[in-house]
Amino acid sequence: MRLFYKCKKLDIASGGDPIVVLREQEAENQGIRPGDRVILKWSKNKSVIASVSVSDNKVDFGEVGLFEEIWKKNQIDAEDIVEIMFYSRPESVKAISKKILGKQLNYEEIYSIICDISSGKLGAIETTYYVASSFIKPYTLDELYYVTKAMAECGEKLNLKERVVDKHSIGGIPGNRTTMIVVPIIASLGLPIPKTSSRAITSPSGTADTMEVLAPVELSMEKIKKVIAQTGACMVWGGAINMAPADDIIIKVSKPLSLEPYDKMIISILAKKVAMGVDYLVIDLPYGPTAKVHSKKTAKLIAKKFVAVGKRFNIKIAVEMLEAQEPIGAGIGPALEARDVLRVLQQHKRRPMDLEKKSIYLAGKLLELKGFCPKGQGEKIAGQQLKSLAAWEKMRAIIKAQGGNSKIKADEVALGALNYELHAKKSGRIVAIDNKAIEEVCVNLGAPREKLAGIHMHCRLGDRVAKGQKLYTLYAQNDSRLELGLIAARNNAVVKIK
Amino acid sequence: MRLFYKCKKLDIASGGDPIVVLREQEAENQGIRPGDRVILKWSKNKSVIASVSVSDNKVDFGEVGLFEEIWKKNQIDAEDIVEIMFYSRPESVKAISKKILGKQLNYEEIYSIICDISSGKLGAIETTYYVASSFIKPYTLDELYYVTKAMAECGEKLNLKERVVDKHSIGGIPGNRTTMIVVPIIASLGLPIPKTSSRAITSPSGTADTMEVLAPVELSMEKIKKVIAQTGACMVWGGAINMAPADDIIIKVSKPLSLEPYDKMIISILAKKVAMGVDYLVIDLPYGPTAKVHSKKTAKLIAKKFVAVGKRFNIKIAVEMLEAQEPIGAGIGPALEARDVLRVLQQHKRRPMDLEKKSIYLAGKLLELKGFCPKGQGEKIAGQQLKSLAAWEKMRAIIKAQGGNSKIKADEVALGALNYELHAKKSGRIVAIDNKAIEEVCVNLGAPREKLAGIHMHCRLGDRVAKGQKLYTLYAQNDSRLELGLIAARNNAVVKIK
Repeated sequence: MRLFYKCKKLDIASGGDPIVVLREQEAENQGIRPGDRVILKWSKNKSVIASVSVSDNKVDFGEVGLFEEIWKKNQIDAEDIVEIMFYSRPESVKAISKKILGKQLNYEEIYSIICDISSGKLGAIETTYYVASSFIKPYTLDELYYVTKAMAECGEKLNLKERVVDKHSIGGIPGNRTTMIVVPIIASLGLPIPKTSSRAITSPSGTADTMEVLAPVELSMEKIKKVIAQTGACMVWGGAINMAPADDIIIKVSKPLSLEPYDKMIISILAKKVAMGVDYLVIDLPYGPTAKVHSKKTAKLIAKKFVAVGKRFNIKIAVEMLEAQEPIGAGIGPALEARDVLRVLQQHKRRPMDLEKKSIYLAGKLLELKGFCPKGQGEKIAGQQLKSLAAWEKMRAIIKAQGGNSKIKADEVALGALNYELHAKKSGRIVAIDNKAIEEVCVNLGAPREKLAGIHMHCRLGDRVAKGQKLYTLYAQNDSRLELGLIAARNNAVVKIK
Repeated sequence: MRLFYKCKKLDIASGGDPIVVLREQEAENQGIRPGDRVILKWSKNKSVIASVSVSDNKVDFGEVGLFEEIWKKNQIDAEDIVEIMFYSRPESVKAISKKILGKQLNYEEIYSIICDISSGKLGAIETTYYVASSFIKPYTLDELYYVTKAMAECGEKLNLKERVVDKHSIGGIPGNRTTMIVVPIIASLGLPIPKTSSRAITSPSGTADTMEVLAPVELSMEKIKKVIAQTGACMVWGGAINMAPADDIIIKVSKPLSLEPYDKMIISILAKKVAMGVDYLVIDLPYGPTAKVHSKKTAKLIAKKFVAVGKRFNIKIAVEMLEAQEPIGAGIGPALEARDVLRVLQQHKRRPMDLEKKSIYLAGKLLELKGFCPKGQGEKIAGQQLKSLAAWEKMRAIIKAQGGNSKIKADEVALGALNYELHAKKSGRIVAIDNKAIEEVCVNLGAPREKLAGIHMHCRLGDRVAKGQKLYTLYAQNDSRLELGLIAARNNAVVKIK
């Protein structure tokens, strides 16, 4: 089959795989059934793989209806002519089957899987099998390297002339927004630090979600280069620039089970560093009972893999393993975290000191790793940049360059209009704070999609509290979300008093 | 959130998960995003889980648009009021994660997964993880029993008073349509044999697809009971009666990788036998280089599991392991196979004798297993039923009871209007026929969806052929499919001559 159709833009967005609509009778004549996948091809060798829906009155014979996902992402006009072709299963499904059956893959096989995921040739189900396959047998070091390389190769890359430093947190600790403090500290010292971050996978906010409260983070590669030229830094969402695009698709199918195996995490982080041309990297790898990594032993194993894979790419990596038993900072959720970050950068009197301290520590380590200063001197230099407000000045420049409001004061950050305070049911000492429970409550409150939703903690581990004392406040943007958050807060022991 | 919406039937079918369309602004106000899943609930406690699409002009505020899948399958009228609720992830995802991480599941956990797959609470991605999880660690005998039991329990059951016999082929050998001959033989002897079959998973035709050429196979449970009362038998598609409904959903997500692990096969077959109340079962388990099972050794292992799981349900099972190196019968594809079946039942002079012989053999084994006759007598009795046309008379009754044309002659079966003959490129002896290659060609020709498409073989293993002699004929319903079939035939060595 090879057929030409006139485009009709449909005003429907599915939020998922691209969908095209064909006239029912016409599809039948062509041997195409609803749910089949086809290749939609148009000028300049551009194409997408789409699922077919059929309809009798939405499109005419000779017409193909396009869901918003297709015509918003690609430059297709109504009346444009596109070609529709049968889609045959790509060879890469054989490689996925091989891995599912427990066999090792070579670089060609891995490259074919990753590129076919990136281009949409493999759909959600095939990608899910690929993700699941990594549980059959752990990746060898070679496989880790191959997947990381393929991920970086199958997307856009940033090629700066200078040597680039970076800092990355593996996530899992609510409120841990050190990146937004470390980046301006480092950049204020003249070291290039172009930072791409992710949106939340299963947590209430990723760095990209939080930064978005202050400035746009979905910038084009061109615009990013401009921001870097102006400020020596940037803080953008990696997903917007088609960098290691397979990663975001993989993240999407990992969501339903909240699966994030360590190997996948290493790949996901390093692929983007390779694409950004990073040379020196400090990784923040917190561990603790309710963190992503539970023990120091596991943390060390992961650190070893990070360093080993990094070496294959000539990236010098230092992994900082800090114990974490509670959130960093007081706010959890995009807006609440952005307020904390601004408080630290603006040296506000009510700034969260734990967040400041950790940021200085990590910035210091990065300075030392790069050889910017002798060992033991990094923290002092980093702290000075905060105190002198040089880091805040740099942050303002970055916010402005990315198109945000650089005059914002910490206490001007808008929070959810609805809030609800939770109080201690008895007096005693706080013996545990459950990071996972906090995240579950925040997600139910609507974070990260609803930027103003989240939790503000009024207490910390070890505090003595009296019965009836305020423990934390829920913020939400609408009643139904506040109710869901409250149910989650009541079903989970967020704060344990003894 | 708890909101009531007026239904609007949309004329779009996606062929996949149910989709509802909300007004974009309204969805946003509710904190619902495209791709989110919601519960759609209406009178009599009926509900479906659906994915949300958004649109500005397809639906009004207060309206919810329903894709065809929803309003065709359920009795919902336009203007009906439905309730839309947030969908929260079911507990069963935790059980899937547990299995993915290599742990064993108990009956409660397995039951929750299977029932949530059946009801649509778990979507395609979660179901894919569940299917993939069976590759992490093989099922224990307990797990096999649990899954089989849960599959049967989470669907409809047939409760006949009499003891029921059955015959099942594991599939994988093209053209192997013995069921449609064994069932009328057995029923003509007065033994109740209510047969549910599947549609093809990855092959060009399943028994249900082939039977559908002769009579409707999507019958309601009520109608099936009527057919059984009239004829003592039936040949219907199991998927239509919500019997072990999880199985069809699992099959759907298994398709993209063509995965069919043996354990899944055992579960899939036995769950339906349990639901049908089968007491005696003969299983046709062919093995061979291009069959589903490659060696006698593996066949024996599978047979052992079949018998062991069957025992837990008090089903007496005999597994027949026959070597198979080429198709059974000459036709492959629904219509071509139906013609072969009719030729055998009508004792046509050009009937495929291999198909007749195997059917008599299996029917004989079933008669002996049930104790209908002494060992060694079964084949003789079965063969007599064919020769006397008693089996054909029974088949006519079944076709008639199910609503088909009981007067059809074998040579009246319509075949694809387009055909193409393939000829021997050299003289020699046929040393191999590749079942998998045949299936690939047939699938490309459009089978099983396009009923009249497929292959008719003119040669058999061991035949001497002259250069230019006809080897097989391709049948298709349209040009584009014929072209795809031809490409596949040229890329695959269907027949090997030496």
